[in-house]
Order: sequence, then structure tokens, then C-alpha cells
Amino acid sequence: MTEFYQEITPDGYGIAIKRKNTLFKEQSPFQKVEIFESDSTLGRVLTLDDLMMTTEGDEFHYHEMIAHIPMMHHKNPKNVLVIGGGDGGTVREVLKHDTVEKVVLCEIDGMVIDACKKYLPTISCELDNPKCEILVKDAIEYIKDKENMFDIVLIDSTDPMGPGEGLFTEEFYTNVKRSLKPGGIVCAQSESPFSQSDAVQKMYKLLKKVFPICATFTSNIPTYPGGYWAWAFCSETVEPLSYWDERRGEAITKTCKIYNKEYHNARFALPNYLKELL
Amino acid sequence: MTEFYQEITPDGYGIAIKRKNTLFKEQSPFQKVEIFESDSTLGRVLTLDDLMMTTEGDEFHYHEMIAHIPMMHHKNPKNVLVIGGGDGGTVREVLKHDTVEKVVLCEIDGMVIDACKKYLPTISCELDNPKCEILVKDAIEYIKDKENMFDIVLIDSTDPMGPGEGLFTEEFYTNVKRSLKPGGIVCAQSESPFSQSDAVQKMYKLLKKVFPICATFTSNIPTYPGGYWAWAFCSETVEPLSYWDERRGEAITKTCKIYNKEYHNARFALPNYLKELL
Repeated sequence: MTEFYQEITPDGYGIAIKRKNTLFKEQSPFQKVEIFESDSTLGRVLTLDDLMMTTEGDEFHYHEMIAHIPMMHHKNPKNVLVIGGGDGGTVREVLKHDTVEKVVLCEIDGMVIDACKKYLPTISCELDNPKCEILVKDAIEYIKDKENMFDIVLIDSTDPMGPGEGLFTEEFYTNVKRSLKPGGIVCAQSESPFSQSDAVQKMYKLLKKVFPICATFTSNIPTYPGGYWAWAFCSETVEPLSYWDERRGEAITKTCKIYNKEYHNARFALPNYLKELL
Repeated sequence: MTEFYQEITPDGYGIAIKRKNTLFKEQSPFQKVEIFESDSTLGRVLTLDDLMMTTEGDEFHYHEMIAHIPMMHHKNPKNVLVIGGGDGGTVREVLKHDTVEKVVLCEIDGMVIDACKKYLPTISCELDNPKCEILVKDAIEYIKDKENMFDIVLIDSTDPMGPGEGLFTEEFYTNVKRSLKPGGIVCAQSESPFSQSDAVQKMYKLLKKVFPICATFTSNIPTYPGGYWAWAFCSETVEPLSYWDERRGEAITKTCKIYNKEYHNARFALPNYLKELL
């Protein structure tokens, strides 16, 4: 009998993937970490506490968006902080920008990093890059005393429950803002606009208290329920679509499966139901 | 035990919906027609030969796109043909354009129309509008001798197997082209760019033989596998984004859950992997 991995939202629907063998399954101090081989074109699948995080086959949908949309708004991003993102996909995309001198990955759960290095090499491949510094610690603590350090902060977290919960507070975002250099930009995954409208609304209410500029962009994620995802774009000074670097943009587009200039420009056009939520 | 409806593509993944009771299930001369009540925010679900067609909860994602993107490119759409679309959702959106004098619905399977009228009233609600003429017949035969009749032809078909198969041929599209008035536009659902890339490629190869202008637009459909869908936009003379009617556009936006001018303008920006397919 075919076995399926299913992720069903509280709304009563979601995704299903044919599964084959489990490659890794352990309980860390924070969550259940699992990687299984699927019987599908998605290849290997990473779940945390049974929630879909990423797959080999569609991970670029998420990682290209969270990295390139904010980074292409910055004239010279040198120092980048990635919070969460232990699979390494966001770091891999960040390092495509040749302006980057250092990317700090602050991931609370070392088991995620180790498992992804072993079983998801196409995603984690840049975690050993000398420009990447890995900190296995709680980003909530890490960010508390940082000031004027980062051009870009990418919050590549799990959902607002479990270990990711403290990343959805006003105090945390206030500290993130303080860690930014002038002209800095924060990008945070902000859930599914269609199936988690309450979570989306709550998060933007919070972000707007902290950042004078707070916009939303969206794109398709095939393996997240609803197939549609939102990210928050926050800054003290940088408006959405106010800048795009031609030189870097052309080089990065050649390496991407999704990202290009027109796609970038189209991302902030939102459906009516989402505009009403925000 | 919870029972699920699953639609798994040949790629090995897809969608799952908690199901409750079956409201309608019969074999027509063409296909198995089924409507069930889901235990989800999606409400009632229509499937044909066990493939997801639409749900009460997310149908607007599909119907607003197939109707308004092409219709808003036309200066004065009076006569519209909808091929397939027996649920009535596309007709409902077409009739929001006050320029429309007549919309012909040519659906091969009368059982789909009858079942949707009875069990999906929020979708089928305009099928009794006096401006709507319903023809229960094969569109392949119907279109053979039509000439200079329609401003807009919307091909709201099933997938290229089963009763929809003959709608994916050069002969059919050539006849559709002949049925257009000058300045006419054809829009056809063209499958999932991510999970059915072969079907997408084949269809566009065909369309490009027939139409000098053949573009693609995409949007999110939560209940189709991959959550992302493509439509072909074809014409002899009308280029994508060459026209948008402010008066009609503003009125229609007020009635829509997704459609607005910025969203419209963003639809033709495609990911790299899809541009390479086309």
C-alpha cells in the first residue's frame, strides 16, 4: 500500500506526498527532525515536528524569494544575518551576491544543520563556505545586543509555534531593527495568506509597530498548503521597488530557476483579499 | 477515521482534503461527476473522473483569472463564448462586464450543469441570467462553422485527457480563431507549469502555430497540485498588457476577491523555468 506524508492545515486541506524510506528521524531538544525519501519528483523532504519545511525538488521557490527580493533592493549588501534556515538554502542564495563579505547563520537547532549537511547536500552546499559563520544558538538572545551590524536580516523561521514562537514578538523585531545598518532591510517569512489569514494579520500588526516601511510580497510554493506564501519586507528607509541592481541582477538571474527582474517587480502586486487583511 | 480526497499527480504529490458526505455521484456518458461536502473551509468540492475541478472556497482564484485577464484587454467585449465551464463560475465573472450582451456556454456534459445548479449555487448562480445561452453540445462540432462571432473565447476545459482531449488540437484552435471578431482574444487554461511541464510545452507549441500572439499568464490556485496554474492568452492583434479599461476595471475590482489592476499587470511576469519551457 502506498504510504503518504500529509500536512493538513486547521482549515481541513493540505498537501500529500508519496513517501518511501526515512533517512533521518530524531528528537532534538527543540523539535522532531525528519528527512525522508519521497516517491515523487520532489526528492527528499525535510519536516520539523511533522510540518513541511522544504523538498529538494521545489526548495528554490522559497529560497530564491526570501533572499533575492530583499537583497536586490540593497545597493551594496556586505553583511547578512539569516535567522533559522538551518537547511542552508537561504545562505546558498545569499552567497550568490558577490558583494557579500559575511553571512551569519543563527540557527537554534544544530541537529537540523547536521542532518541537512548529510542528507540534503544540494540545499546545504554553501554552509561550509568560508564567508558563512554558523552560530548554533537562540536568535532571540543573539540579537539582543547587536547594533548597526547587518545590511540584510532574513528571518527564515518555522511557524509561530514551537521553537519559532519567540520570533513573532515586538521585542524581537525591535532588536532586529537595532541590528540593522542604515539602509538595512529585514525580510521574514509570514505564512500563507489564504489558509493562515489570522497569523498573517497578527504578524503585520506587530511589524508595523516597529518598522515605518512594512510591505508584503508573495510567490508560489508548491509544497506549502495553498501553494501560496507571503514574506514581510521591512525597513526604516527603503521602499519596495525603489532600487534594482542591474549588474548583480543579471548575474543572479542566470543562476536561478525562478528569479528575474520582471518576476521581482511583480511580487508586490497583491490580491484584494490579502490587501484587506493587511 | 478521517477520510481524505486526494489528487496525486504522476509526479507523486498533490492535494488532500478532508471529506464528509457525497452529495452527488453519477456516471454521465462522458465522465464520473461528483460533488462532495468537505470537512474544510473549502466547502463543497466538484470532481470529474476524480480530478479536482473547483471548490466553493477557492473557486474565485480560477474564475476571476480566466475571465478578467482577457476581458480587460478588450475595449468593448459584447459577445463571449465559454467552452466547458459547466459549473458556471466563468459565466458569472464574464457577466460582471456590463458591455456583455451575450455569453454562450458550450458544455458537452449536461449532468455537470445540472449538478452544479443544484449543489453549487454560489458558483452557478448566473447560469439562468437571460444574457446566458446554454448549449449542451460538443464544442469541437459547435465551433466548426462559426465565423466572426465572438469578441472573447474562454476555454475552461478539463485536462487534455477524457472529454477535453479534442480541445487540445490544431484543428480546434484554428476553428476558434475563425470564430473571433477583429480584435478578439482567446484564453485557455493551460495546466500546471511546475508539475505538468510536458503538457504545457506541447500546448504552447500548438497554439503558436495558430496565433501570431501567444502569451502566458499565471496565478495561484490553492486546490490544484503545485498551487500554481497557467493560462494561454492568444490573439491575432492584441498584445498582453496593451489595454486596460479604467471604468470597467474599477467596478469589477470591487466585486472580486483577487482581481485588481496591479495584480492584472503582474500576471505575465513568469519564472525562469516557465520561460524556458515556452
